[in-house]
Amino acid sequence: MLKKLLLFGFAGLAVLTVGILIGHFGIQKGSSAPEWVQELSHDVDEDFIQKFIAEVDNMRIEENLKELTKVPHMATTAGDEATVQFMLRRWQDKDSGLDAAWREDYRVYLSFPNKDTPNKVTVVNPDDAVLHTVQEKEKAYYPEQDDPEVVQPYAAYGPAGHAKGRLVYANQGKVSDYEHLNRTIDLRGTIAIVRYGGAGRGAKAINAAPFGVVGVLVYTEPYDMNDGLMNDNNETYPNSWYLPPSGVERGSYTSDFGDPLTPYLAAKKDTYRIPETDINGVPPIPIQPIGFEDAQILICELGGTAAPADWQGSFPCIYNLGGPGFTSTSRFNNGEVKLHVYNSGELRDSANVMGVIWGSVEPDRYVIYGNHRDSWVHGAIDPSSGTAVMLEISRILGQRVKAGTWRPRRTIIFGSWGAEEFGLIGSAEYAEEYISKLSQRTVAYINVDISVFANATLRASASPIAENVILTASKQVKAAGSNTVSVYDNWIKYFNKTSPTYGLIPDVGYLTGAGSDYAPFIHYLGISSMDISYTYDRSKTRARIYPAYHTAYDTFDYASRFIDPGFTSHQTVARTAGNVLLRLADSFLLPFNCSDYAESLEGYLSAAVKNFEEHLKANSISIEPLKEAVKSFRNAATNLDSVIRSSDLVNETPLKARRINDQLMLLDRAFVDPLAFPNKYAFRHVIWASRSSGVATFPGLADAVEKALATGLKEDWNQAHRHLSIVTQAISGAAHTLAEAHATQ
Amino acid sequence: MLKKLLLFGFAGLAVLTVGILIGHFGIQKGSSAPEWVQELSHDVDEDFIQKFIAEVDNMRIEENLKELTKVPHMATTAGDEATVQFMLRRWQDKDSGLDAAWREDYRVYLSFPNKDTPNKVTVVNPDDAVLHTVQEKEKAYYPEQDDPEVVQPYAAYGPAGHAKGRLVYANQGKVSDYEHLNRTIDLRGTIAIVRYGGAGRGAKAINAAPFGVVGVLVYTEPYDMNDGLMNDNNETYPNSWYLPPSGVERGSYTSDFGDPLTPYLAAKKDTYRIPETDINGVPPIPIQPIGFEDAQILICELGGTAAPADWQGSFPCIYNLGGPGFTSTSRFNNGEVKLHVYNSGELRDSANVMGVIWGSVEPDRYVIYGNHRDSWVHGAIDPSSGTAVMLEISRILGQRVKAGTWRPRRTIIFGSWGAEEFGLIGSAEYAEEYISKLSQRTVAYINVDISVFANATLRASASPIAENVILTASKQVKAAGSNTVSVYDNWIKYFNKTSPTYGLIPDVGYLTGAGSDYAPFIHYLGISSMDISYTYDRSKTRARIYPAYHTAYDTFDYASRFIDPGFTSHQTVARTAGNVLLRLADSFLLPFNCSDYAESLEGYLSAAVKNFEEHLKANSISIEPLKEAVKSFRNAATNLDSVIRSSDLVNETPLKARRINDQLMLLDRAFVDPLAFPNKYAFRHVIWASRSSGVATFPGLADAVEKALATGLKEDWNQAHRHLSIVTQAISGAAHTLAEAHATQ
Repeated sequence: MLKKLLLFGFAGLAVLTVGILIGHFGIQKGSSAPEWVQELSHDVDEDFIQKFIAEVDNMRIEENLKELTKVPHMATTAGDEATVQFMLRRWQDKDSGLDAAWREDYRVYLSFPNKDTPNKVTVVNPDDAVLHTVQEKEKAYYPEQDDPEVVQPYAAYGPAGHAKGRLVYANQGKVSDYEHLNRTIDLRGTIAIVRYGGAGRGAKAINAAPFGVVGVLVYTEPYDMNDGLMNDNNETYPNSWYLPPSGVERGSYTSDFGDPLTPYLAAKKDTYRIPETDINGVPPIPIQPIGFEDAQILICELGGTAAPADWQGSFPCIYNLGGPGFTSTSRFNNGEVKLHVYNSGELRDSANVMGVIWGSVEPDRYVIYGNHRDSWVHGAIDPSSGTAVMLEISRILGQRVKAGTWRPRRTIIFGSWGAEEFGLIGSAEYAEEYISKLSQRTVAYINVDISVFANATLRASASPIAENVILTASKQVKAAGSNTVSVYDNWIKYFNKTSPTYGLIPDVGYLTGAGSDYAPFIHYLGISSMDISYTYDRSKTRARIYPAYHTAYDTFDYASRFIDPGFTSHQTVARTAGNVLLRLADSFLLPFNCSDYAESLEGYLSAAVKNFEEHLKANSISIEPLKEAVKSFRNAATNLDSVIRSSDLVNETPLKARRINDQLMLLDRAFVDPLAFPNKYAFRHVIWASRSSGVATFPGLADAVEKALATGLKEDWNQAHRHLSIVTQAISGAAHTLAEAHATQ
Repeated sequence: MLKKLLLFGFAGLAVLTVGILIGHFGIQKGSSAPEWVQELSHDVDEDFIQKFIAEVDNMRIEENLKELTKVPHMATTAGDEATVQFMLRRWQDKDSGLDAAWREDYRVYLSFPNKDTPNKVTVVNPDDAVLHTVQEKEKAYYPEQDDPEVVQPYAAYGPAGHAKGRLVYANQGKVSDYEHLNRTIDLRGTIAIVRYGGAGRGAKAINAAPFGVVGVLVYTEPYDMNDGLMNDNNETYPNSWYLPPSGVERGSYTSDFGDPLTPYLAAKKDTYRIPETDINGVPPIPIQPIGFEDAQILICELGGTAAPADWQGSFPCIYNLGGPGFTSTSRFNNGEVKLHVYNSGELRDSANVMGVIWGSVEPDRYVIYGNHRDSWVHGAIDPSSGTAVMLEISRILGQRVKAGTWRPRRTIIFGSWGAEEFGLIGSAEYAEEYISKLSQRTVAYINVDISVFANATLRASASPIAENVILTASKQVKAAGSNTVSVYDNWIKYFNKTSPTYGLIPDVGYLTGAGSDYAPFIHYLGISSMDISYTYDRSKTRARIYPAYHTAYDTFDYASRFIDPGFTSHQTVARTAGNVLLRLADSFLLPFNCSDYAESLEGYLSAAVKNFEEHLKANSISIEPLKEAVKSFRNAATNLDSVIRSSDLVNETPLKARRINDQLMLLDRAFVDPLAFPNKYAFRHVIWASRSSGVATFPGLADAVEKALATGLKEDWNQAHRHLSIVTQAISGAAHTLAEAHATQ
């Protein structure tokens, strides 16, 4: 009986179990969760990030760089087209490519010297006999400098023209430099020689013209760039990273960015183009860059009185101001400098190459990662070091996508911009063409142009909202050349600040300039942007930038022997920037911190109060509304942070996380005011726009107050008041966007 | 045995059943659906809409109107403050109020006459003896016209000043009218009398000044407004809806909108204010509106030659141009008109009253419904007919929210704007202050200002994207005074068009002007807007607008006896606009149709091609890119529609519906270009901006081409080309935003 009972018991249990199984699995629950519920919680996978970091391959980066730098690839040349094809091949690769890749061409206005009639600088005597001719091209230490595609050094967008006059030395070509000269010298009809630095390239000529200067020569002062070293037998490249005597920095001499003929319009074939004569911010007089070997010959022969101490450089002579002209004991006595410039503008088709990995959960949210592709010559460091890194990141991610093992939550867009060297043209045209879509959907823009200036430390500039994600990423990556020290711990030794919130942390700088392709994104579109690279130990060199910058010596040989032997700094940048990219693309909740923005605004506010409050008050302008606005921003940020902390977002309605993500994504957009700076092309971000004032605070306010202090005019104080109201409204408007949707009152 | 077996069988079945039940209900499935899955599918409830329609109560609207029109409530007066308090009481009502209601004050620059020294218009003889004095106030048929708070008729923002001169008749005060006069008359030192219509109020003086005219009188021509009727014994109010002889239309004489002293900035206490002398678009010479009783006395005594036929009106005399001055046989012979204006500007605090119902599913998506609250006098029709309707809608919805029986999917915001009559000031300041938040989150703005002009038919103007939802709503509501005919079927008889897609449908107009508070939303912010009202049978009257407009006769008595006895038209508007509001707030997928936008763009394109293509070609400007852009927009719209049709959106990831809703919500935003019209204040929408040209097409292009055709100047053709590129880029940019996130190439 017991046996029977047990049997029945077991049978019953078995039947019950079958029933339970049928009930549980066999019958669909009315409210069973749709598949997408699980997908919605897609978040950063830390294992994947570790694997990504491990997989970044310095040797592949080196190979990328070698390929990218085979030939000079100045924008729109055959060499540039070869890199377009190379990028397309890589991004369209069947096994390790992206979901899609394509090219987008713009017809843009570039400026080139004339191959048949090179620009020429000479010293002539009163009979026009040539006493000295400035070198037309850089010295070839290797065959690559002899490549016929190496463009002659020139000042892009500098006008064609002929100028002749007595030489003066005008330091950096700042307005104050010409003013100084003008006190003792009649500058009318003179040629000025100036050193790079201190003022924008084009500004050196724009500042000169009102004083009657008829032409400008620009050189690289060895004191500024070479730590004083000048001898190519043992001191400069090819023996070190320093610039050889004949090296010349090329560059764009415009002050605005984007295609100069199509302001605010994408440069398509039939787009309206302004007359060339209306181009803003270009040199009005002929200008030509030269090497310091020639500069020394000219400067050391100058007559007149000695230049001020801080105008002196490394040449073994006293830098005189010029009589004007050369000293009477010089072989150039009574000589004049003659400048022949044959630059001309041309419409050329320049390509961006775009690649994309579609997001799985939020395909309409974009994280853009970009760098320009064009260089002045071979451009190993500028920009190919960044492109080599981008290609390694896209290779690893593309491979995972093709293998079906990973797809980001959000869409990742890679951009290889064209014609950056001429003024961020490719990225600016892209921003103009897609302004609506990009403004509506872009989470962030990551720029890695020159990825390695030097091997000492990471450097980053960013919107404060992105500071946090960069710091997080930097903690997970080891510093170049170390197996133990993190990028973060190494970085903090070189650049740091004391945050009221966090104490001592690495100092993420602000993006107030327009030095690379982040500018159209942060300044024109108000997209939270960042710029990441490896750079110097500033205590070891005074170099303004790596010395081969924009010269024929910026080659693979230079990069691999002097900038980053072993390519471990490249690798470190790829790991860090890639980590940032993955966090932005994969995080369930965006890794943005609005309270860090509040801290930055508070810092700017303190500087404004300290420097300007009394002056404003004396002119009956109250800074209180600005204080209130910053306070309201801080409160709104604190509240949003506490909503995030106190929510179980993964388990609440997905529209709540989306709402918060949108608030974070659009925060920088709230600072865009298209009318704030009518004279600063495409600068619309009222916090990070460029600034002339030395006070690190709100740029419109700072510049306007300084002008008003200088002139004392009522209308200038009105402008200061206007800028105070503009920034106040922008900050309090941004605070409104951070407020809970349920607490707008 | 059988029994036993059966027993065991039943027992086994029972155990199995228990098992199934346990398995199904007792064990939670790992993937059971969270509660919010159900909530996410929240959609329009057609039953609820029917109940809403049924509940709209004409008697309550009448009561609202009575309350709102008790006293004159010109902006910032005590009467206005009383309406502020009334709105707050209603929206904060414990039982039928909204979730929250509050006031927001702006310090704005308004213009008033001087109560102690009224503006004065006289005819004087050469010895300055007064021959005639124009009535200073309107005749009182009821005590309400005698209310001391009835503001004297005046031209707001017209300058204070004294002018004296011989009178001329200048028709509508258009440039062409003054040019006509100027051919035969020396206008220097004259006073012009002009009729309302044809040109903006302020333009009548702005156009006059360059000819030397020193003052302007503006009157309402009975031909234009009263169908020629003039006698208040039996023809005009209080016997009909027509304007009595002493009635004077007040109005704002600015051409820009928003607070005149704080362009692009919300007018807070400390906001920067431009100097009053810098206010743009206001009359440069004294100007005063008068009634037609006085106008007749002046015009019928004028000397000179007869005015052109189309300048003639309903007075029983020939309208002469003026000698200048009166005819020699007149009792005013040699008389001059004297004009004393004592208007002055004042900073006043004006309030918006805001009310909100938070959305349950998408609280960060706003549907805004608004109307202004301020009137010139009692303002029964303008604006209180709209406010009475808004209050009835908000009462019904508020009641449901308080009862816990309904909450919209999206947030509904009600706005009762201040100081609209002075230039849409309350809504414009709101748009300026909250520009970022509103741009990011607002689905639509519904404006119902004057809800009932007359009883014939619905009239609506809207962004084309909203045409569809208005038509849908109008089909569900019965026309005023009918139990059988729908608003739609009635409407189509009065205003219709043949759509290539739909055939004959009611004609929803475009929002190209700035006649009411929709302007800051559509033109400045690019928010899809609509303007809804009941209006005339145009075959029955020539009246420019309802005749008591902006006069002391726009009272509850007037509204209830002549405009809408029984308030059934008000009720119909409340039902229709409320239905639109509910559909926008509750629909799972926004009831927006981007293909309707394509149809509008195609219509504009045809007009541009027809009128301008040849001219453009003759000036080497190709219109092809515009054709391409419109085509790409059409394709993108078709594709998006097909994605919507082929998707099972309720069962797919909620982020897909959200993405599509965002595409629809942000479509109008893609047409915003802050730099397109530097001379048109706050007009940023490149499709719907104001237009001078008579060609119904893209406004920037049309106006630029017409100017270029007139001048033939290269620089004007350049501007035409520029506008062509601007609108092309905007349309193709908008098309990009409609493209699938997965198909951006």
